[in-house]
Amino acid sequence: MLHTTVSSAPMMGASRLDVMKFLNEIAGSYPDAVSFASGRPAEAFFDMARCLRQIPLFVRHFAQARGLDFDTAFNRLAQYGHTAGAINDLVARQVAQDEGIACTESQILITSGCQEAMDLCLTTLCREPEDIVLVCSPTYIGITGIADLNGIGLVPISCGAQERFGDALAHACSKAQAQRKHPRVLYLVPNFDNPTGTTLSRQTREEIIAFCANRGIVILEDNPYGQFRFEGEAIPAMHALDTHGCVIYLGTYSKTICPSLRVGFAIVPERLLGSADATRSLMDRLSQAKSFVTVNTSQITQAMVGGILLEQGHSLARLVAPATAFYRRNRDAMVEALADAVPEGRDVGWNLPAGGFFLTVSLPFDFTHEEAESCARDYGVLTMPLSFFALDDAHRRGVRLAFSNVTPERIREGVARFGRFIDDRLGVA
Amino acid sequence: MLHTTVSSAPMMGASRLDVMKFLNEIAGSYPDAVSFASGRPAEAFFDMARCLRQIPLFVRHFAQARGLDFDTAFNRLAQYGHTAGAINDLVARQVAQDEGIACTESQILITSGCQEAMDLCLTTLCREPEDIVLVCSPTYIGITGIADLNGIGLVPISCGAQERFGDALAHACSKAQAQRKHPRVLYLVPNFDNPTGTTLSRQTREEIIAFCANRGIVILEDNPYGQFRFEGEAIPAMHALDTHGCVIYLGTYSKTICPSLRVGFAIVPERLLGSADATRSLMDRLSQAKSFVTVNTSQITQAMVGGILLEQGHSLARLVAPATAFYRRNRDAMVEALADAVPEGRDVGWNLPAGGFFLTVSLPFDFTHEEAESCARDYGVLTMPLSFFALDDAHRRGVRLAFSNVTPERIREGVARFGRFIDDRLGVA
Repeated sequence: MLHTTVSSAPMMGASRLDVMKFLNEIAGSYPDAVSFASGRPAEAFFDMARCLRQIPLFVRHFAQARGLDFDTAFNRLAQYGHTAGAINDLVARQVAQDEGIACTESQILITSGCQEAMDLCLTTLCREPEDIVLVCSPTYIGITGIADLNGIGLVPISCGAQERFGDALAHACSKAQAQRKHPRVLYLVPNFDNPTGTTLSRQTREEIIAFCANRGIVILEDNPYGQFRFEGEAIPAMHALDTHGCVIYLGTYSKTICPSLRVGFAIVPERLLGSADATRSLMDRLSQAKSFVTVNTSQITQAMVGGILLEQGHSLARLVAPATAFYRRNRDAMVEALADAVPEGRDVGWNLPAGGFFLTVSLPFDFTHEEAESCARDYGVLTMPLSFFALDDAHRRGVRLAFSNVTPERIREGVARFGRFIDDRLGVA
Repeated sequence: MLHTTVSSAPMMGASRLDVMKFLNEIAGSYPDAVSFASGRPAEAFFDMARCLRQIPLFVRHFAQARGLDFDTAFNRLAQYGHTAGAINDLVARQVAQDEGIACTESQILITSGCQEAMDLCLTTLCREPEDIVLVCSPTYIGITGIADLNGIGLVPISCGAQERFGDALAHACSKAQAQRKHPRVLYLVPNFDNPTGTTLSRQTREEIIAFCANRGIVILEDNPYGQFRFEGEAIPAMHALDTHGCVIYLGTYSKTICPSLRVGFAIVPERLLGSADATRSLMDRLSQAKSFVTVNTSQITQAMVGGILLEQGHSLARLVAPATAFYRRNRDAMVEALADAVPEGRDVGWNLPAGGFFLTVSLPFDFTHEEAESCARDYGVLTMPLSFFALDDAHRRGVRLAFSNVTPERIREGVARFGRFIDDRLGVA
């Protein structure tokens, strides 16, 4: 399935499965290659035994809130549960502490991973054929995949480094309206974006909110990487800055605790575009949709998240500190290795993300499917062309390098290999 | 959202959320009422501690198959996993032993509960506006909900007790074709159906398979209750009887182990309608769709299922025996109490399901929303009008009674109350 707004380039706007197949194939064919392709969190910081150990802590909390004894509560948690979730009170406290987001339990829908939250929000908000989603180009494959699967149109926001985001957004909106499309949703990863690694400034966030509120566009603020900040002050979540009721916050415990739990969530505004009735109606529709997709999120994996949140006093800041330090060292190793591998004057650039899992390299030549295969086959390094994530033609020279699931030693080796590939392509000895 | 083929009656063809709201409201308003409304499995037979205890058994199995040490395997299970699942080998053995289904791992997609399997199959198989799903009337709310949510048309198979299923199916098909609709999928619960409790004979299963194979209709064989048989010989699964490649088997561990795990699965035919290519293409499309809905099923809850399957030697027959005995006693208590409560000659009837969670009562007067409320308010017994599950007008006098999540003592009390309601309605002292 290809995006309707996309035409030529091979793999451009590729589906997640296409990309995953490519990844699996090259990873399978070149098992000794250094992989900067997968943006998975580092497994060394997972502690599944701890998750399991904290279950009783949550069972006691759940029991106390409902006046049950421990065994009854444990059995209740083994049963079907509320569609909206069982740990909403604890998630509300966690986002208050870690993200400065004020919300009540009733604004939260616990989902089977954040991907489900994205799916539910997109399919619930975009019901008419003319409803479209605004996305950055490049953007996360998970959102474009949902749109394609459900026949929901996408309009890319093509924001070059020189352009203000607000201008690019207004331009995309005008383009959509000229096509008689109705922009209903804007999807964003404001912190340490996947795939670009960039972060939106507070001013940009406020401009986007004002623009969207004015046009009745709902912002899906996806924040999987926000807790992994390496330096500088955190920028408030858009949900926390929003006074118009136009931001739905999407969260996940896949990166902070571990992906296997498949626990994510959506936080709707207290008053959706100013209306408490609209919020209630949205929550009803999201819950109904969820009840037909997964019934409810596993209460036992919710209990693991709940136990960890109780153990940690509702903030994950302390828990993620070692992983954050690891990711920071990896980023540093990567940019140092890039500086070593690429002599000045080569017209090769990269950004310095202040957190997260990814950085992007820009090359003075096209880097597509073929070049990625050559890197894997001839140089032993796996990378992702930025064009895989793009909906326009402006990213043929970009590469995404993930530094999250690899060691500093392998980073130095892999970047050196990537440097040799660049040298060879540029015909330097 | 109402079914397009449905017109008048209140709550008829109601959505799951509507029904759940009704249930929650009356259950909340009349907490002392005896509930025959909820078809949840009995919590007393859940053993979450055992599920947790068996995780290491699966970790060792997973490690051995991949040449990993225990800790690496455990961390790998905490990570993102394969979209298709991590316990496919064990599920293949379980359905071979318990259901006589022969399949390979590659035919299995593990899902976040069976509801997700239904959602993925329906939305993947019904892509064109004219594609419709054939369902019994009455049928499980989960399937009609998915259809409504995705704008997929439904055509009811209205099979009265006197009519052969095959004739009713052929009639529904003709009706669909007369409306220029394309029947793509037939959804069935062949064992101890929800809501009716009825079971399809081997002959009927074979007739349905031949009919569907001939017309290229894919059968979704949903079997949540099949392992809870009280008496008589098991009838082979339709997937096991199918030589044409037209049956997708849908399974769940929600009733046999517990709902909180949210682990279900779909088993596609080895050769879909005779084509191995069609099977590969279907599995690719199902996996792609799953990757955009829930990425992959929680590997830690899969590990719990896997551990239990290993502990049990790949069959759940022994594990479910005590629960089956409990459900049988409950069914017996319910039919005995009905015989006691309803004198002969009252034109009140009920069926004797050979397994499962439900039976149905037919009354000599309408039993709708209002009567269900009266039962709750005035008599202290919660029941479900069969019309809630119906897509036609033929079930206004039917009542579903669930005997799965209540004790024999409460059954006797609840049925006596229901009997008093019937007496009062019929004007007998």
